[in-house]
Amino acid sequence: MNSNLKKGLLVILVGAIIWFLPVPAGLKPQAWQLFAIFVATILGFILQPLPIGSIAFIAVTLSALSGVLKPAEALSGFSNITIWLIVSAFLFAKGFIKTGLGRRIAYMIIKAIGDSTLKLGYAIVISDLIMAPAMPSSAARAGGVLFPVVRSLNSALGSEPGPTARKVGAYLLQTEYHGNAITCAMFMTAMAGNPLIALLAAKTLNIEITWGQWALAAIVPGLISLLVVPYFIYKFDPPELTELPESKEMARQELVKLGPLSSAEKIIAGVFCGALLLWSTSQFTKIDATVVAMLGVSVMIITKVLEWKDILEEKGAWDTMIWMGSLVALADYLSKLGFIPWFAKVVGASIVGIPWLPAFGILLLVYVYAHYAFASLTAHITAMYAAFIAVAVAAGAPPYLVALALAFMSNLCMSLTHYGGSPAPIFFGAGYVDQGTWWKVGFMVSVVNLIIWIGLGSIWWKFLGLW
Amino acid sequence: MNSNLKKGLLVILVGAIIWFLPVPAGLKPQAWQLFAIFVATILGFILQPLPIGSIAFIAVTLSALSGVLKPAEALSGFSNITIWLIVSAFLFAKGFIKTGLGRRIAYMIIKAIGDSTLKLGYAIVISDLIMAPAMPSSAARAGGVLFPVVRSLNSALGSEPGPTARKVGAYLLQTEYHGNAITCAMFMTAMAGNPLIALLAAKTLNIEITWGQWALAAIVPGLISLLVVPYFIYKFDPPELTELPESKEMARQELVKLGPLSSAEKIIAGVFCGALLLWSTSQFTKIDATVVAMLGVSVMIITKVLEWKDILEEKGAWDTMIWMGSLVALADYLSKLGFIPWFAKVVGASIVGIPWLPAFGILLLVYVYAHYAFASLTAHITAMYAAFIAVAVAAGAPPYLVALALAFMSNLCMSLTHYGGSPAPIFFGAGYVDQGTWWKVGFMVSVVNLIIWIGLGSIWWKFLGLW
Repeated sequence: MNSNLKKGLLVILVGAIIWFLPVPAGLKPQAWQLFAIFVATILGFILQPLPIGSIAFIAVTLSALSGVLKPAEALSGFSNITIWLIVSAFLFAKGFIKTGLGRRIAYMIIKAIGDSTLKLGYAIVISDLIMAPAMPSSAARAGGVLFPVVRSLNSALGSEPGPTARKVGAYLLQTEYHGNAITCAMFMTAMAGNPLIALLAAKTLNIEITWGQWALAAIVPGLISLLVVPYFIYKFDPPELTELPESKEMARQELVKLGPLSSAEKIIAGVFCGALLLWSTSQFTKIDATVVAMLGVSVMIITKVLEWKDILEEKGAWDTMIWMGSLVALADYLSKLGFIPWFAKVVGASIVGIPWLPAFGILLLVYVYAHYAFASLTAHITAMYAAFIAVAVAAGAPPYLVALALAFMSNLCMSLTHYGGSPAPIFFGAGYVDQGTWWKVGFMVSVVNLIIWIGLGSIWWKFLGLW
Repeated sequence: MNSNLKKGLLVILVGAIIWFLPVPAGLKPQAWQLFAIFVATILGFILQPLPIGSIAFIAVTLSALSGVLKPAEALSGFSNITIWLIVSAFLFAKGFIKTGLGRRIAYMIIKAIGDSTLKLGYAIVISDLIMAPAMPSSAARAGGVLFPVVRSLNSALGSEPGPTARKVGAYLLQTEYHGNAITCAMFMTAMAGNPLIALLAAKTLNIEITWGQWALAAIVPGLISLLVVPYFIYKFDPPELTELPESKEMARQELVKLGPLSSAEKIIAGVFCGALLLWSTSQFTKIDATVVAMLGVSVMIITKVLEWKDILEEKGAWDTMIWMGSLVALADYLSKLGFIPWFAKVVGASIVGIPWLPAFGILLLVYVYAHYAFASLTAHITAMYAAFIAVAVAAGAPPYLVALALAFMSNLCMSLTHYGGSPAPIFFGAGYVDQGTWWKVGFMVSVVNLIIWIGLGSIWWKFLGLW
């Protein structure tokens, strides 16, 4: 029996056992059955006997076929406005990559400041930061745009996998990988799972986190983290070369190859600035973040920067729409049918008397280091975020502190492993860093980030009046 | 100024003029503004300054940006169950094509009966009929499966574009093209726009047309039409060769090449039979047609007949989801905001006194021959179906008669031109038939179909008690 079949049977078995367990008092059978489907789906996302899109599609089908949800309810996630923010943002990213604007930005920054290995590291991370607000796919930003830049710089600087790996390559790849985790945490639209976090926080704790609030809460710890982490890696796992007098010239040559700024790049830059402006002012304009993103895509379509076929070929968007849309529907009805309130009440009753600070601290550490078991940030969020914030708040922790701390750590935990986020296999797979080093650096970076984001961050959020 | 730009400006201009016209009495401004967006969208679908998916995306964005609809309302079409029936059925079709089962069915029928040109015509049309209930894309069925079969038969029989075109090729291509239009009309799931028809009939006239009712209403006129039309073309535009003793042997050789029935083909056949069974018995089992289709896709996914990447690559499904989902949302809120009831009342008041039979007759003919102006069946349906059935019923015509007659003619009108349906450019483009002949045959076939479907059909529907 092959391994995927075994995994698939395990998923079905677990779902079936929960389904047929006696329904706890105070809960509708329907809510319990949906919970069984939900758990099986999450387990399927973790074990992946089939691609997660397939599992999600089957889960939605079963929820409707079994009569637990009406067909229209089971499909409701596909018109969720959060889902369409994500779909639209994937199409934004496509514009960045297609026009070459992302690479141009990276080379411009390298040309300006990249004359040492450390500065080159900062140059790359800054490029990532600039693109982050409008590229919700860390795979697209780190893997699609910056990896090719870093990889070609490495080769040009004579650093290849093997004996020369540690000249500059190992450092630059790790710095961008960990830097990317930080930029992911900084904007609601910088990682595909972040809008889901905002949605789950709204549904579970009844608190609203807008695009602007997210960015404001993240800006101080984010910038400190971006300043500290590249330097920390530079000291903890130092590159062999430190001065790189030739790298500015190399970037200049690449910019010559790219030629003058094309009109398509100008349009993307304009759309990008416009979207940032509208996103950051949405509390005044009342224009929904999804509508802003769709407007941006519409402009790209009208100006033909994006062709319709580019959109249909953006499989990441459709994949995400299906699996995340399915999950949003299941999670939504889990709440509507009364499961989440029931769960919060039960857990809340059982932890009466424990002070919230140690309770929250333990929950936070468990949440972060549980990521050793996940190959996807969004799978981790889906499986654990709602339950953990519900429990922490039930223990008496302030809702915004809980929601934000877990939101940011949901991104930063990507640092831990060489499979923990979608760019990981690309950066690790380049072959510059052995697994032991990757994990050691990753663990240390996670500690640095916990100190900066939770230690300093919580003071900043207090200052902002968020808790 | 290029032609697409002109068309685009015209679309915007028409939308803007309607938007700024005084709002008719008895109508909310919001309903009128949505009507302006709707008209501009339909005009965009007809003129196509951009692909229709792009136009639909922009229309949804504008409806939300302008505040006419809330973002969640504007996106609501993407979770519509009819839309997901269509998406799922596209994935069904993918299974047929990917496994080669469609071609095998065609060659088996040719091997059994195809020893004359006329019988070969029937064999191909019967193959189309067998696949029709589970292949909602006429492009996939006629273009993807049967066109390659017909085209290779033509070559094998020595009939190529040019002097030998009329040996058998011109006949077989026209027969399958017109036969395909008939099979499209026969099942709710045989053409992408048909579920939309059922939805529009439900929303406009408040009558339900189930999968089984559609098939039952269509079976008698459909079979007569499939019997008559190939023979009619055979007489009206006869092939030069009539006896084809070698074609059975050729089909046998193709079947040898295809090898024994693969397990994937068996699964598709099983899924297909199961879906037919569940679709035709849904009034007893209460299992929704969409859920049946999704169950079929789930089985294909679990058995790996369809890989997840096949699904993500099925661009037809995503294209249709976006443009049709957008339109469904707009049409739905046009009705919810009161535009459609207002429109029906106004038209109803203006045609008091005209007997329904001539009114309906004229509406029907206008509807059918308006298709000379359309390059897509679904665009035609979207633009005209709801309005025409509303007006006909307002004139006093029986709702089911109106809904069915226009439903079937929505498919059959594809015959008229060499651009009237998605397989048209493929079949005409093969170069066997000149445009004059294509239009002449098309017009005559449309008359034959009107007589069979409306003349005989209305008697059958009376017999069924539908009006």
